[in-house]
Amino acid sequence: IETGDAEALRARMEPLHESETGDVIEALPADDRVRLVMLLGDAFDYSALTEVDDSVRIDLMEELPNAEIARGVADLDSDDAVYILEDIDEEDRDEILAQMPAFDRISLKRSLDFPEDSAGRRMQTDFIAIPPFWTVGQTIDYLRTNDDLPDDFYQIYVVNPGFNLLGTIPLDRILRVQRATRIEDIMNTQVRQIDATLDQEEAARIFERYDQVEVAVVDESKRLVGVLTIDDIVDVINEEASEDIHRLGGVGDEDISRTVPGVVRSRATWLLVNLGTATLASLVIGLFDGTIEQMVALAVLMPIVASMGGVAGTQTMTVTVRAISQRELDKNNAWRLIRRELLVGLTNGVIFAVLLGLITGFRFANPALGLVIGMAMVVNMIVAGGCGILIPMLLNKLKVDPAVASSTFVMTFTDVIGFFAFLTLAGWWFGLF
Amino acid sequence: IETGDAEALRARMEPLHESETGDVIEALPADDRVRLVMLLGDAFDYSALTEVDDSVRIDLMEELPNAEIARGVADLDSDDAVYILEDIDEEDRDEILAQMPAFDRISLKRSLDFPEDSAGRRMQTDFIAIPPFWTVGQTIDYLRTNDDLPDDFYQIYVVNPGFNLLGTIPLDRILRVQRATRIEDIMNTQVRQIDATLDQEEAARIFERYDQVEVAVVDESKRLVGVLTIDDIVDVINEEASEDIHRLGGVGDEDISRTVPGVVRSRATWLLVNLGTATLASLVIGLFDGTIEQMVALAVLMPIVASMGGVAGTQTMTVTVRAISQRELDKNNAWRLIRRELLVGLTNGVIFAVLLGLITGFRFANPALGLVIGMAMVVNMIVAGGCGILIPMLLNKLKVDPAVASSTFVMTFTDVIGFFAFLTLAGWWFGLF
Repeated sequence: IETGDAEALRARMEPLHESETGDVIEALPADDRVRLVMLLGDAFDYSALTEVDDSVRIDLMEELPNAEIARGVADLDSDDAVYILEDIDEEDRDEILAQMPAFDRISLKRSLDFPEDSAGRRMQTDFIAIPPFWTVGQTIDYLRTNDDLPDDFYQIYVVNPGFNLLGTIPLDRILRVQRATRIEDIMNTQVRQIDATLDQEEAARIFERYDQVEVAVVDESKRLVGVLTIDDIVDVINEEASEDIHRLGGVGDEDISRTVPGVVRSRATWLLVNLGTATLASLVIGLFDGTIEQMVALAVLMPIVASMGGVAGTQTMTVTVRAISQRELDKNNAWRLIRRELLVGLTNGVIFAVLLGLITGFRFANPALGLVIGMAMVVNMIVAGGCGILIPMLLNKLKVDPAVASSTFVMTFTDVIGFFAFLTLAGWWFGLF
Repeated sequence: IETGDAEALRARMEPLHESETGDVIEALPADDRVRLVMLLGDAFDYSALTEVDDSVRIDLMEELPNAEIARGVADLDSDDAVYILEDIDEEDRDEILAQMPAFDRISLKRSLDFPEDSAGRRMQTDFIAIPPFWTVGQTIDYLRTNDDLPDDFYQIYVVNPGFNLLGTIPLDRILRVQRATRIEDIMNTQVRQIDATLDQEEAARIFERYDQVEVAVVDESKRLVGVLTIDDIVDVINEEASEDIHRLGGVGDEDISRTVPGVVRSRATWLLVNLGTATLASLVIGLFDGTIEQMVALAVLMPIVASMGGVAGTQTMTVTVRAISQRELDKNNAWRLIRRELLVGLTNGVIFAVLLGLITGFRFANPALGLVIGMAMVVNMIVAGGCGILIPMLLNKLKVDPAVASSTFVMTFTDVIGFFAFLTLAGWWFGLF
């Protein structure tokens, strides 16, 4: 296909949906991507670029001439245009904006002035606003005669002359009533509106909670400046979920198109932190080297206690972190959950203490050793439950994302307490100090 | 409020959105929940029950008389009604269905016959279907005169007499054109339709990929039986993300309203598995008890190597599992990613080998020990990278959800290899065997 036959290429790419075009771009080697876009020219729909990995898009944007980008972006919905432009460096972005029609330029600039990841960045600035005194008939006629309507829309906004939002009307309501009905008599007056500076994650929560398809976005003086649509919110929800999962797993903002040096850097931070905490745990063991020397079985067994605590702590922490990010954990149920986790820790602690105690007692033909490891297990499981819920809650109170740091702290506690409890109990029981 | 003053209660609850009513229900003690619903009677909107935790809803449903449930559920959209009915046991459910109007009963029964978590369960069975030869004017007149329309709708479906889908028309398109326009001239003929038996997760992916707001659901003979709307899909996306996060953290289907015995059970499985794998790691250490006896420093240091491998393995596994569940990892990039992870493991292995080697060399005034732990670190980090990507991919090939089991396998490998590599290298280097 890449022999330069633009006509054949256009024919092949024409029937594809933008997300399929995106897949084609990702599958191509970097050089061919640029050639593809240039060959397609006008026939290339830039919205396909919102469907590819960030790094692919950024590389491609650097290769393409600014004039070409300006032309392509001008055809897009404003939210897609902002999505593409926000990752381009400032100098190139200004050059691209300068080559666009004045009206598009102004609205894009306004969107780009809002903070990253805010509702203002994600909003669509084309929407339909009408005065309350119109009738349904007038509204329909306006829609029929106006050529410059947004691509898709699901509701109409009713505003006063100052562009303050008075109400909204879903399209189906307009179709249900007679032409003579006045708009103000059928509009929803209980409208939800979002500040343009609101974080996109909070905006997503409003969509979920109130099952909205489109929500109005207003600026600081409550003027309607755009609308957020559910398809953008679906992307936000997915991104936030990936972020939570990655952070819990100790990796930063990583996507699969990253190259080795980037990945090494994004992961080295947590490996370094873990080197510190593992060394701490090792220092704790070091305190007992005399004890271990007298009874090597302790060295053989101690990782079991630490590892069980680690799993139990991770379980509690996972549930807690997700509940916090879904806003399910609050003052009303915090105490109940803390009590629950401690009780779960105690119960599972006793169950697995008995199991491990029996196994150990037989394995080393030493019932006392079984008893000691059982007691250490109970202690460590309760600590694991407590840390698993308290650490994320504390981090959240301190305005640190609990998904980022909880894991390391929880593991450190369960390791240190696990080794310490087991070795102290053993040393004391067997008189090895 | 719970003094039995139904009037005052109704006035208080009236202005609340269904999700806010849901919050009120969750905040009440169990007995008051039933009383609240009974007192409100007709004024209670059952859709609030779709917004509460599963366990709260199930308990409440058991307490309420079936006749009351039948009355409440009959007012709901079919998707909400199914959502509430699907968790009720079969006997009660049949009794409730028997008390409902015949038409509702049939469509609910059909939805409930589809497998759990399928598109058929989530779909809304009220939709608007028209023949292709109508004009826009006829369509609008039909909507104006028909009282029995669904609550919200975003597009209209064009069907043939056999109820096969011919096309769809978003409402905005109807409002843009003249009354005389024929429906078949403006409908989208490239329609996406979903089999009713398709898993809801796959259905969600179609919405995300093609930015749809509503998609038609068809039965095995391609007859239109319902529509899936984006608000249901948003819930699906969130549920699936929670499921992935919980599974990665080693907990089953858990929500924060579960009580202690349920939580203990849901977590004990993985603790038991971990007891097995930790015991395996401990057996590996046991092979070297003679070595450790001669050099206690090995016992003090060995958890560091295992723990660093564990973190590195978890990082790779997290990225891989998320990429698999987002369908970003496929045959095209698998080899590149495996090579990348091995290379990342090697690079970070070397970096942290040098660091830990230096620390250890000084701490024990034994450069050879530093060298040995460094080599073990490199080996373990490469193994961690390899396992982190290969284990989830293999599980996925075997049709096992990689989120469920990867973590345990990866940890087992990194622990066993970590202990083994370090203790073997040390025993060999220092001639301790």
